[in-house]
Amino acid sequence: MSTPLAAIFMGSASDEEAVAPAAQILQDLGIPFKITITSAHRTAARTEKLVDELERQGCRVFICAAGMAAHLAGAVAARTIRPVIGIPLTASPLGGMDALLSTVQMPPGYPVATVALDKAGARNAAWLAAQILALEDPALAQRLQEARLMNAAAVEQASEELERKFA
Amino acid sequence: MSTPLAAIFMGSASDEEAVAPAAQILQDLGIPFKITITSAHRTAARTEKLVDELERQGCRVFICAAGMAAHLAGAVAARTIRPVIGIPLTASPLGGMDALLSTVQMPPGYPVATVALDKAGARNAAWLAAQILALEDPALAQRLQEARLMNAAAVEQASEELERKFA
Amino acid sequence: MSTPLAAIFMGSASDEEAVAPAAQILQDLGIPFKITITSAHRTAARTEKLVDELERQGCRVFICAAGMAAHLAGAVAARTIRPVIGIPLTASPLGGMDALLSTVQMPPGYPVATVALDKAGARNAAWLAAQILALEDPALAQRLQEARLMNAAAVEQASEELERKFA
Amino acid sequence: MSTPLAAIFMGSASDEEAVAPAAQILQDLGIPFKITITSAHRTAARTEKLVDELERQGCRVFICAAGMAAHLAGAVAARTIRPVIGIPLTASPLGGMDALLSTVQMPPGYPVATVALDKAGARNAAWLAAQILALEDPALAQRLQEARLMNAAAVEQASEELERKFA
Amino acid sequence: MSTPLAAIFMGSASDEEAVAPAAQILQDLGIPFKITITSAHRTAARTEKLVDELERQGCRVFICAAGMAAHLAGAVAARTIRPVIGIPLTASPLGGMDALLSTVQMPPGYPVATVALDKAGARNAAWLAAQILALEDPALAQRLQEARLMNAAAVEQASEELERKFA
Amino acid sequence: MSTPLAAIFMGSASDEEAVAPAAQILQDLGIPFKITITSAHRTAARTEKLVDELERQGCRVFICAAGMAAHLAGAVAARTIRPVIGIPLTASPLGGMDALLSTVQMPPGYPVATVALDKAGARNAAWLAAQILALEDPALAQRLQEARLMNAAAVEQASEELERKFA
Amino acid sequence: MSTPLAAIFMGSASDEEAVAPAAQILQDLGIPFKITITSAHRTAARTEKLVDELERQGCRVFICAAGMAAHLAGAVAARTIRPVIGIPLTASPLGGMDALLSTVQMPPGYPVATVALDKAGARNAAWLAAQILALEDPALAQRLQEARLMNAAAVEQASEELERKFA
Amino acid sequence: MSTPLAAIFMGSASDEEAVAPAAQILQDLGIPFKITITSAHRTAARTEKLVDELERQGCRVFICAAGMAAHLAGAVAARTIRPVIGIPLTASPLGGMDALLSTVQMPPGYPVATVALDKAGARNAAWLAAQILALEDPALAQRLQEARLMNAAAVEQASEELERKFA
Repeated sequence: MSTPLAAIFMGSASDEEAVAPAAQILQDLGIPFKITITSAHRTAARTEKLVDELERQGCRVFICAAGMAAHLAGAVAARTIRPVIGIPLTASPLGGMDALLSTVQMPPGYPVATVALDKAGARNAAWLAAQILALEDPALAQRLQEARLMNAAAVEQASEELERKFA
Repeated sequence: MSTPLAAIFMGSASDEEAVAPAAQILQDLGIPFKITITSAHRTAARTEKLVDELERQGCRVFICAAGMAAHLAGAVAARTIRPVIGIPLTASPLGGMDALLSTVQMPPGYPVATVALDKAGARNAAWLAAQILALEDPALAQRLQEARLMNAAAVEQASEELERKFA
Repeated sequence: MSTPLAAIFMGSASDEEAVAPAAQILQDLGIPFKITITSAHRTAARTEKLVDELERQGCRVFICAAGMAAHLAGAVAARTIRPVIGIPLTASPLGGMDALLSTVQMPPGYPVATVALDKAGARNAAWLAAQILALEDPALAQRLQEARLMNAAAVEQASEELERKFA
Repeated sequence: MSTPLAAIFMGSASDEEAVAPAAQILQDLGIPFKITITSAHRTAARTEKLVDELERQGCRVFICAAGMAAHLAGAVAARTIRPVIGIPLTASPLGGMDALLSTVQMPPGYPVATVALDKAGARNAAWLAAQILALEDPALAQRLQEARLMNAAAVEQASEELERKFA
Repeated sequence: MSTPLAAIFMGSASDEEAVAPAAQILQDLGIPFKITITSAHRTAARTEKLVDELERQGCRVFICAAGMAAHLAGAVAARTIRPVIGIPLTASPLGGMDALLSTVQMPPGYPVATVALDKAGARNAAWLAAQILALEDPALAQRLQEARLMNAAAVEQASEELERKFA
Repeated sequence: MSTPLAAIFMGSASDEEAVAPAAQILQDLGIPFKITITSAHRTAARTEKLVDELERQGCRVFICAAGMAAHLAGAVAARTIRPVIGIPLTASPLGGMDALLSTVQMPPGYPVATVALDKAGARNAAWLAAQILALEDPALAQRLQEARLMNAAAVEQASEELERKFA
Repeated sequence: MSTPLAAIFMGSASDEEAVAPAAQILQDLGIPFKITITSAHRTAARTEKLVDELERQGCRVFICAAGMAAHLAGAVAARTIRPVIGIPLTASPLGGMDALLSTVQMPPGYPVATVALDKAGARNAAWLAAQILALEDPALAQRLQEARLMNAAAVEQASEELERKFA
Repeated sequence: MSTPLAAIFMGSASDEEAVAPAAQILQDLGIPFKITITSAHRTAARTEKLVDELERQGCRVFICAAGMAAHLAGAVAARTIRPVIGIPLTASPLGGMDALLSTVQMPPGYPVATVALDKAGARNAAWLAAQILALEDPALAQRLQEARLMNAAAVEQASEELERKFA
């Protein structure tokens, strides 16, 4: 894979299923990315080293997914001024509220661009990363616009089926 | 003011105080921006028109602040593929939980980069916008790095004062 | 089907199961309705067009079901002064609190008549629509009164069975 | 005052300030209404009697405001098939969550059209009542459309002032 | 069965499983009781009639179980000055918070003695009813004391098994 | 004061203001009571001794008020089979949710009759205690019925004033 | 087993599965411990006796796991000045929020060192107990450091596998 | 001041008032401590350096106070195996729930001993630190026992005053 423009960090191997849609979307959009596991607490030094290396290689946006007291996105945001996107994951009986608040309520100066919980958030993290990268990449912007048209078309097609059913 | 690179939308005139820190930070960082009031519900057409115009003028990132059932950022995110940052505002007795969930829980394909509630969020919205713009602007990136050094220095100075007090 | 007096919008094809009871009740009450899928974000223009067309055709009440940052009912409420009923759906691990607050906490002037979460709410959305339509339709009012008598009778019958069991 | 088309019930004299905006809006829109205090628990019989009398007099929509375990709207909804609108009020340290859930989570067949908390909700209760009454009253519908245009104009004027300030 | 000293009301036939432990405990303690289904909304008149009849027959304590906007205990508490015990039931995705707040947050003068959610609460409703009845019934008080000794013995026995396992 | 029939325990001297309405109502109803401060944690032994002594003296119902991790009512409930009423107090920024859940979610066999938060709950604790004592005291039952009639009359009088104002 | 340095109390036999990881970790770290079932309410006297005996035997840290209105850790904390660690357990539909707040919100002077909910918390309770004991036990401190290195190594190995998969 | 046995870190100068009671209690108990300001995000490197230095100097327990997405205690816990105590602070409209969940929900292996919110938590953090240190310091243990006796005496004295007032 070529030089990654985006990185996807997840705090634990068990997050893979929830995070996979982010990787899929980046792949579909042709955005080279690095995906790895690294923890704010278990591998704090590794996390910092990864951020530094990726930044040097030209990585432009970081996506971080974590559950419970989800500090990973914040730790990355403290290390780089590249935009950091946080995906809060449901990993406790609290319905993801712990991860959401741990991710979004960052102190001034160290923003984490927080998206929705779990797979919906993983998808949106990838879309947001793509929207940021598209600011400099008109071809990518074009692909994003086309994806939106396809979204709309999918809604219309599904609604036709539904309407037939209830007619 | 020159062509705006960022836009700040607030849903109501009463949001001005909470949102002002975002404007201040953009100003301090030398980022030209447009600030205005527009509502997802009361002026839906105006919101769409503003997004289209600003995008045509070259605006690269949208900051949207709203309280209660905060739909403004989502409405903008549905209209543009430029990154949209959402500031949830406390405008009801629910402690801002209504605005936070209405902003962050966007459906796949239409991300809103959600930051913290109220003034802390307004500050972070500006910092996040700047971090996105800095991807293409090395001088701005430099200013962001310096701001972080100043943050750290401020902590150290405050801690010296505190330590003297408790010595 | 004759000219729809009510419309049921759902934000996604996956909402069909939760929303179906609303359609069933309207059907049972003999209220002509249109049911379709349309999204506040993915098909914003289609949503507006549907509202305008249905209003022109004489549709008198809109039922909108959506989950997560449920903006659909609000988007419809911003487009029409016909009463809009919102059904918040559980579509995230937050137990529906996101959809509930995104639906009910509308700003002044743009009310959404919010009902309970999920299927219970779908049923009540249909009943509420019928109660509004019954203001102009005495035969429908009669059917609603009868339905309530049947509700009460069903409770009494169930309680007889229960009482026998515990006697 | 002529025959009331709407009724405003509040559960306690202390609710007057929060509920007043509903009365003001009905008055401004020229909708005759009855406003009174009645409690689901302290004056259960009076509540039922009021509903029956008002319904006989032609009252078409009931607005009920209550705090804490807010049962008032539900009690009214159990007594009439006319549409019942519920305004949850903040009357405890729980931020109104108690009143909101007690109002909106009604069982199937007995909907309460729930609006936002406190004054914002009072305003929306009145607007929703007006929207329901406007189905049969084209002049009222006209006034509602005009109110919306004025809302939009107010946003535009406020935004001009704000823009001048930041120019 | 002899004259009931306690009544168990549930709002819906579907509550039977959650409420059954209350009946079982009353039976085990030899407390004559009436169990039935009645709804605050669907059978408001029947609820009032049942309360009046049971009170006349000498029923001394009312146990009311309901989910969602759980108004049943409150409706009974408004009708009698006999102690009313409320069991909040989980009947929505909100984790029972709706029923808990609708039951416990009663306005001054109309208390509902609220116990825990679901089956744990059903058990405690029966124990609380028994504790109230035991104020006048020394033999019942004796049985309650014995039940507590058995509870303690059961803990000790279970702990012996556990300790053996880990020894 | 004669032999107390009710006891009011509060966990801290700072709870006095919130709890005072309970004492006032018991006094107004002529119910002899003991009021004191005792803590589940700071004076665990004293709490047990007080319960034992009061029970011996004939105290029939215990009212316990505490904030935060409100264990006081539970500690008393573990010591006596007399009914225990718990008043959750707001003593932290969590809006009383901590005290409410710590009070109401008691395990099977050890019920705490939980009432509303703070002063509203203090009032209802006294009313509930009185309702329990009235089972054996027809004169007290009579006073409770009269209090309810006065409540209803107060609502009607307040509503007359309000109606005059809006006429 | 030798003299226990740590004790694990659980409030009910049904907590065994959630608490087992704490025992496993203590065992793996070679820390002698006592595990038993005892309840703050059902066996209050036994709980006190156990604390006193264990403290006399040299037990240095207490781990207490309980659900719902989790008073066990607080009851132990009121009896000893040895550090008490609380594991809140999910034992109701409230997602563990009841147990968390009942455990953490202890009044000044009687701290409970609260860890995460359920199994994650059980693990952390054991780690925290070990960290406290390691203050006096350099060999144990060494084992803890090694465990952390193994944690980090496990993350790196898992990330290698993941990276291969996505390469 | 002699070699610190405890450290108090706060994330921001504005936390001083909430954290001061912790310092006061350590001082009163004669425990030498270091108090300073350091941030998980603004001064991540300084935080790590402080932990390393203090640990080398013999500091045995770390107290960390932070608000919003409170990562400070977790960052310290990732750096040392000495016990880390977390004080969640209310620094947003969410009532401290953000800081509480960000502090307590730590992943396995990296416990934070979480105490109550704000000043009550600051007091308990100091008491918990003292209880840990007292395991090796019998004189300190003695002072803690005496403090508890004084707590109990204070309750008894306050209750005498209250009882006189109500006599």
